[in-house]
This record gives sequence, structure tokens and C-alpha cells, in this order.
Amino acid sequence: MKNTLVLCSGGIDSVTLAYKVAAERKLGRLVSFDYGQRHRREIEHAARIADRLGARHDVVDIKALAGFLTSSALIGGSETAVPDGHYAEANMKATVVPNRNAIMLSIAFGIAAGAKADAVGIAVHSGDHFIYPDCRPAFVDAFRAMQACALEGMWEIELYAPFVGIDKAGIVREGVRLGVPYDLTWSCYKGGERHCGRCATCVERREAFHLAGMPDPTAYEDPDYWKAAIGKRMAERD
Amino acid sequence: MKNTLVLCSGGIDSVTLAYKVAAERKLGRLVSFDYGQRHRREIEHAARIADRLGARHDVVDIKALAGFLTSSALIGGSETAVPDGHYAEANMKATVVPNRNAIMLSIAFGIAAGAKADAVGIAVHSGDHFIYPDCRPAFVDAFRAMQACALEGMWEIELYAPFVGIDKAGIVREGVRLGVPYDLTWSCYKGGERHCGRCATCVERREAFHLAGMPDPTAYEDPDYWKAAIGKRMAERD
Repeated sequence: MKNTLVLCSGGIDSVTLAYKVAAERKLGRLVSFDYGQRHRREIEHAARIADRLGARHDVVDIKALAGFLTSSALIGGSETAVPDGHYAEANMKATVVPNRNAIMLSIAFGIAAGAKADAVGIAVHSGDHFIYPDCRPAFVDAFRAMQACALEGMWEIELYAPFVGIDKAGIVREGVRLGVPYDLTWSCYKGGERHCGRCATCVERREAFHLAGMPDPTAYEDPDYWKAAIGKRMAERD
Repeated sequence: MKNTLVLCSGGIDSVTLAYKVAAERKLGRLVSFDYGQRHRREIEHAARIADRLGARHDVVDIKALAGFLTSSALIGGSETAVPDGHYAEANMKATVVPNRNAIMLSIAFGIAAGAKADAVGIAVHSGDHFIYPDCRPAFVDAFRAMQACALEGMWEIELYAPFVGIDKAGIVREGVRLGVPYDLTWSCYKGGERHCGRCATCVERREAFHLAGMPDPTAYEDPDYWKAAIGKRMAERD
């Protein structure tokens, strides 16, 4: 059973991955990053999930990086606002944090080496492929090859990315099977008291439950906006 | 002229790279990492070099990571002592910081993207190949391929590693030609008032000037230890 460290933001994808690892492998620990994101409350959600699963939870503070990466709307203090709408829209490029997955994964591999873990798990999935190049299968394969070189002869650590070929609705279906408590997860980029229902990740969350045919336990500020956002995307595609 | 961000520790290799970039390309900025290393004074040396070159100097504080990477002797608070001797010896594995180059390079690529730089320069060289897998040509090539995937369609940033095929004596020869003020550089892992002359990087520094046939401007606590260390290595190889 591979001792697996899971990168966990507290959202649907990575919490489902944590439950999958706990059920099918050995869950070593959850690791979250505080990179100065507006939606920092997601970290508290990750902590609650770790508690439920009886796993250690490490929060890695990389806020010192935020000043260097401020072009993204996701980082507090950035002058760029979080856009409303669907990920497939052009304005969603504002939510790209430069090189985020490479940075987080590299650090996670260092932590895994120090902790003598066998694998690092990340919940990248096909729904992200439109907009984030560092969520695509080519990136996952290239990162795996890079790490094999970087640690050669010293550590052997697997990159586990079981959702890279499936979409968020597929993740929700798997999560319901695994008994994931989705009411404890957090997605919204805006980081308010409730999920806004309007930002890309809220729209994607609501859509995923709809496509999976599962009830969505989330309370949204604007529970119906997602239909308009998806309608707009469909109209643009036609 | 490619605007190049240079990873600069304040040592011989990366300071020579900074001078090479300033002479042959466009030096964007120097970036140093504070990872809780015992030899933190190297950062002040990098700052002085940036000042000489009229370049911006950013220090990225990743000390929060140190607690997760404490297996290395290079990190302050680690119970492992910095070993004396030559890099080629087995005990030098204690100086490996897990995944250091992948972590630093990933962050540097994120900073370069935010700063709209064209390239990231790193001074890995063939003298490091024995012990650090993340200094070898295979790693550099794999990292380059990974970054091309990670940033695809959004940023195009080159990985510039001109010393990967040459050794430290070759770097010193090039640096003398470029007018590098080696008296302003810092190598020693122990981080005392003067270079100890006994740790692997002091031995390597002294040997490099010797092999390059150049005068070494460094004041060492133990100026003659390097000969014994190299003799021991030679005897082990025979």
C-alpha cells in the first residue's frame, strides 16, 4: 500500500482524491498551500477533512511568493477582480496563477522525500484542461519524468493523478460512492461567507452535481446564475 | 536580447552566471532563496553583487518549508552536521536538500512569468553531477520540457543553463575573463565569519581556482585542508 501525500485545497476534486486514497491506498497526510489566495477559507475546510480522515494536515505558507505572482485575480491584494462566468470563457485567464501546479508539486515532492512517502497525489482533471495548461495529461507526464531525474538514485516517488482523464461530474459520481461529505468542501474563489454561485469554480461545482445527477448540498448566494453562464458558453460555441 | 532572471546564491557559479548574463544578454534580476540554510550570509553576498551589476535583487523567503525538509545538514536546526571533505565522498549525501532545484526553478519560472521575463538562468555545472541528480543534463532537459507543458500557450520562458557541461574550474576561467569580483562571493556551507576551508564547497572552491590556474582571493580558516581532502578522494578512486 503506497503511502500517499495528497495535495488538498479543500475543494471537491482534492477532497474526493483524499477519500479515494484513504479507501484504496494509505493516506499519509494532506498538504495545503497558503499562497495568499482570496479564498483562504478553503484551508479550514481541508483541515476539517483531514480531521474526519484521521490524517495529518500540513499547511505550507508560501505567501512570501504572492508579491511575485500578483498578476492573478486569485491572490488577495491583486487589483484584478475575480470574474464571473464559466471557465471556458476568455476572461478566465485572470484566474491563472503563474506556474502554480509546478510550484506546489515540486514542494510536495520535497516534503514527500523528507517524510519518506511513496507517492504524491494531485486531483487535476479534464474539466481544467481548457484553461490551465498545468492540468493537462502532457504536463502530468512531463512532471513525472522531471521528478524521476531530479530524485534519481535517492528517492522514488510516484505522481498519482487518477482524475486526469475524467471530468468533475465523474469525480462527484466517484465521491458519492466513496461517501465524501461534500457539504464540508469549499470551492468559491471569492472567499465570502457562502459560495457566491457566480465565479467559475462555483458554476463548475453546481454544473458537476447537475451532470452527475446528484443533489448539491451547497448554499449559494446566487443559486441560479450557473444556468445562464452555461447557456452563454453554449451559445458562444454554436 | 533575452531578459533573464538569474538564480543567485552568492557563490562562484551563480555570480559568474550573473556576470555572463549581464555581458551577453539582458540581466533582469537576481533571485535568492532564504530556505533556512546555515550559510544564510551568502544572501548578503548576492545582494552586493546585484548592487555592483545595478540589478534588482529579490529574496524569496521559503523558510516555512525548512521544517518539512530537515533531513539535510544544510538547513539550520537540523541535527545533521555539515561534513568535511570532498563532494565525491559518500557522506556528502547529507548535504542534499530534497528536490531543491526543482522547487527553486519552479518558483523562479512563476516569478519570471509574473515579471514578463524571457528566461531563467541557473548555474548548475558538471562538478555537481556526482552527488546531486538535480544538477545533471538529464534533469535540465526534463525540467525544460515540463515547463514548456506547464506554461503552454500563456508564457514562453527559456531555461538557460550554460554551465551544465563544464566544471567549476571552467567557470572560474570564464569568470576571470568577465571580471567577476570573486572576493565578494561566498561558498562555505558552515556560514562562519570566514570560509572554513574544510566543507565540500570550500574544498571545491579552492580546488577550482587551483585547476583554473588562477589566484584564489579567499581567506580560509584552514587553507591547506583541501589538499588532504582531494588526496583522500584520489586514494579512494585508485
